Amino acid sequence: MANAAPGLDFPELALDSLHPSLTDPSLRSMNLLNQIANEYPDAISFAAGRPYEGFYDVENVHTHLRVFCAYLRDERGMDEAAVTRTVFQYGPTKGIITDLVARTLAEDEGISADPESIVMTVGCQEAMFLVLRALRADERDVVLAPQPAYVGLTGAARLVDMPVWPVPTDASGLDLDALVNEIELARSAGKRVRACYVTPDFANPVGVSMDVSARRQLLDIAAHENILLLEDNAYGLFHDGAKLPTLKALDRTGSVVYLGSFAKTAMPGARVGYVVASQRIPGPDATNSLFADELSKIKSMLTVNTAPLAQAVIGGKLITHGYSLTSANKRETTLYQRNLRQVQDELDRLFGDLPGVHWNRPTGGFFITVTVPFPVDDQLLAKAAREYGVLFTPMCHFYGGDGGHHQLRLSVSVLTPELIAEGMCRLSALITDQATAQH
Amino acid sequence: MANAAPGLDFPELALDSLHPSLTDPSLRSMNLLNQIANEYPDAISFAAGRPYEGFYDVENVHTHLRVFCAYLRDERGMDEAAVTRTVFQYGPTKGIITDLVARTLAEDEGISADPESIVMTVGCQEAMFLVLRALRADERDVVLAPQPAYVGLTGAARLVDMPVWPVPTDASGLDLDALVNEIELARSAGKRVRACYVTPDFANPVGVSMDVSARRQLLDIAAHENILLLEDNAYGLFHDGAKLPTLKALDRTGSVVYLGSFAKTAMPGARVGYVVASQRIPGPDATNSLFADELSKIKSMLTVNTAPLAQAVIGGKLITHGYSLTSANKRETTLYQRNLRQVQDELDRLFGDLPGVHWNRPTGGFFITVTVPFPVDDQLLAKAAREYGVLFTPMCHFYGGDGGHHQLRLSVSVLTPELIAEGMCRLSALITDQATAQH
Repeated sequence: MANAAPGLDFPELALDSLHPSLTDPSLRSMNLLNQIANEYPDAISFAAGRPYEGFYDVENVHTHLRVFCAYLRDERGMDEAAVTRTVFQYGPTKGIITDLVARTLAEDEGISADPESIVMTVGCQEAMFLVLRALRADERDVVLAPQPAYVGLTGAARLVDMPVWPVPTDASGLDLDALVNEIELARSAGKRVRACYVTPDFANPVGVSMDVSARRQLLDIAAHENILLLEDNAYGLFHDGAKLPTLKALDRTGSVVYLGSFAKTAMPGARVGYVVASQRIPGPDATNSLFADELSKIKSMLTVNTAPLAQAVIGGKLITHGYSLTSANKRETTLYQRNLRQVQDELDRLFGDLPGVHWNRPTGGFFITVTVPFPVDDQLLAKAAREYGVLFTPMCHFYGGDGGHHQLRLSVSVLTPELIAEGMCRLSALITDQATAQH
Repeated sequence: MANAAPGLDFPELALDSLHPSLTDPSLRSMNLLNQIANEYPDAISFAAGRPYEGFYDVENVHTHLRVFCAYLRDERGMDEAAVTRTVFQYGPTKGIITDLVARTLAEDEGISADPESIVMTVGCQEAMFLVLRALRADERDVVLAPQPAYVGLTGAARLVDMPVWPVPTDASGLDLDALVNEIELARSAGKRVRACYVTPDFANPVGVSMDVSARRQLLDIAAHENILLLEDNAYGLFHDGAKLPTLKALDRTGSVVYLGSFAKTAMPGARVGYVVASQRIPGPDATNSLFADELSKIKSMLTVNTAPLAQAVIGGKLITHGYSLTSANKRETTLYQRNLRQVQDELDRLFGDLPGVHWNRPTGGFFITVTVPFPVDDQLLAKAAREYGVLFTPMCHFYGGDGGHHQLRLSVSVLTPELIAEGMCRLSALITDQATAQH
């Protein structure tokens, strides 16, 4: 890639003199996955976790921007100069659509959030960074996360040198007995457990959800142990009709920091997410400060503010759909549900009789986990791409190399029925060949 | 602000348990400045460093986006689906307009940069963070910066726990003898000096520029001492016609990392900046890696990518103006030049005879430094706002409280001639009263 790049060696920049996150194995492995995907652009990809793009239309960007400007004029009483300034100039660090986001959270999730407790971020990724940066004060601080875990959380933690303590998962997500156990273990090792990251709905990578009683039990543990719950809800809207309440909606003790994303529900290309952090910060000097105020200070040193232009487009979409992303995503939800069912039906049809091959049955989201009776690693992925024309994600990447060696993640979000049918045929050939070779 | 916010105390979030950047005095003082500005919205502000907004027009956003999409179709040969995907989907971490930025750097600055050496960022602020995060591997690593320094650099350094070693400034910016001295001092204290941050053109806050021979000398020092130069060039285009070459354009040893911003030259509300990092990373495992590749890895863990939507709008502007921001900013440059001269003329007229009051004469940029014979602090600023209806920035904020006690920064960028005339009258009343009271 950079072979022919002009540039001069700069000996002081040897990799081992740079921040350790740059040589972290998890980062290296994600780059490898991207490389394989780029090398075989014609392979059918069950690896890509991107949202479906068939409904995107650039004209909508123009419309949403006009709708937002009209809203500034009509609802906020701005004159033309103020409208222009809002879109063009530096904006408040917390953002310009926190009120619209609060309305949408009330509408879609039954979450009651003061706009002052919301910070708009450059995608959910920046939200995770802000929270972990605030919480990582010194080398004692650790964050807990389910294993397997979303690599974005691991990456953000690496950037602030914060260890991620793995918590085993069971069929419904986080193993709560193991969680209590890990908290104790961490504390007896002299660690300060600041938070536990969790995706109760259709978690990436495994696809499963926690039931309501597990959610309540998790909230009790958090309150009792005085740790925050960092709730990531990127996929919750894509359910089968039986929506469960978020941890944030159930929270009565202020334990939940809610991480929001518009990448899946609106437009990844706007890079707009947010965090709801309504915790009051105690102390004489900060009596009136919310955790959101502290996160906003960090943001002012990191990205200053989230592009008002991008917020305006997202804001226009929220207004257009009556502050309901559930309503805005009817077509998408139908499509993701159909794809999930199609992949599960194909799995039933193709592998119902194959010993050692089984899979879970998420009722929403983008992901399905398949277990196979042979090792799944990058060599196998490269072979699948080269010889079978199909891509998936080896689950071991979400374990930091420390587990998931017989599992793969299938993502259903970007494919059409035709591609799924053909892709599952190819996957079937690979899995059958590998399972046979194993015996 | 957050007085009435619903929320629950969360004892584990006491400020002293959070990251030390949150209680840093420099952060606190910037918040105070904003508070005073918000309390007195009718005061004439020589404090705001925002670009002039009189030429902004939301229709331009629509036009720029259309121009960029047409370019994707016509120049890059994309079909409609690919155009839509480029704007809507997740994009490459380095960005989608690195080639357009490279063309613009060649056109405006005579800088030859491989697009592969460029990473698009969420404003220049994220660029500073990426570089400092990469360079701060452990507690030995320090960055040098002129004192007084731009607070954005200090803030980014705080987030990675990297000490900023101050280098004294003289009338032309960085004091180069002092720089060599500081490098030696830092090294004998066991520190590893990774880089020196510098704004050779119209630096914020002092407004002065380094001459060409000082630039060459600085490059020699960097090459000899094996440190990087982090060149911030937010204001360089707003010159009086006598443009000087950037460090990056003069660099023959690969010492310069160039930090770019479109906030002043295009649109703050897009939050698009970039970094040019063409240094080759040595080592067997990274033979083909540029420093830009490493920065891009960090970005993937921080913000994933810079909003393609925002890049598209900036890209459209670059295309529209033939890849010349100099040409795109003709009206703005004329206006800033006129404002600078008007403020300097008023200073001459009002304070020419007042003992102890003097000022510098930047030939471009946004800022002028005024020295007065009385202390300038936040109390004086509050008094100025309340009793005189005028705002400025006490220079001590750029010293971390450790200098500049008799100086103030005047910013000329957002004002009209009428407001400058009236504002200078008000400032004159304040300064005359204070100077008189002093005796």
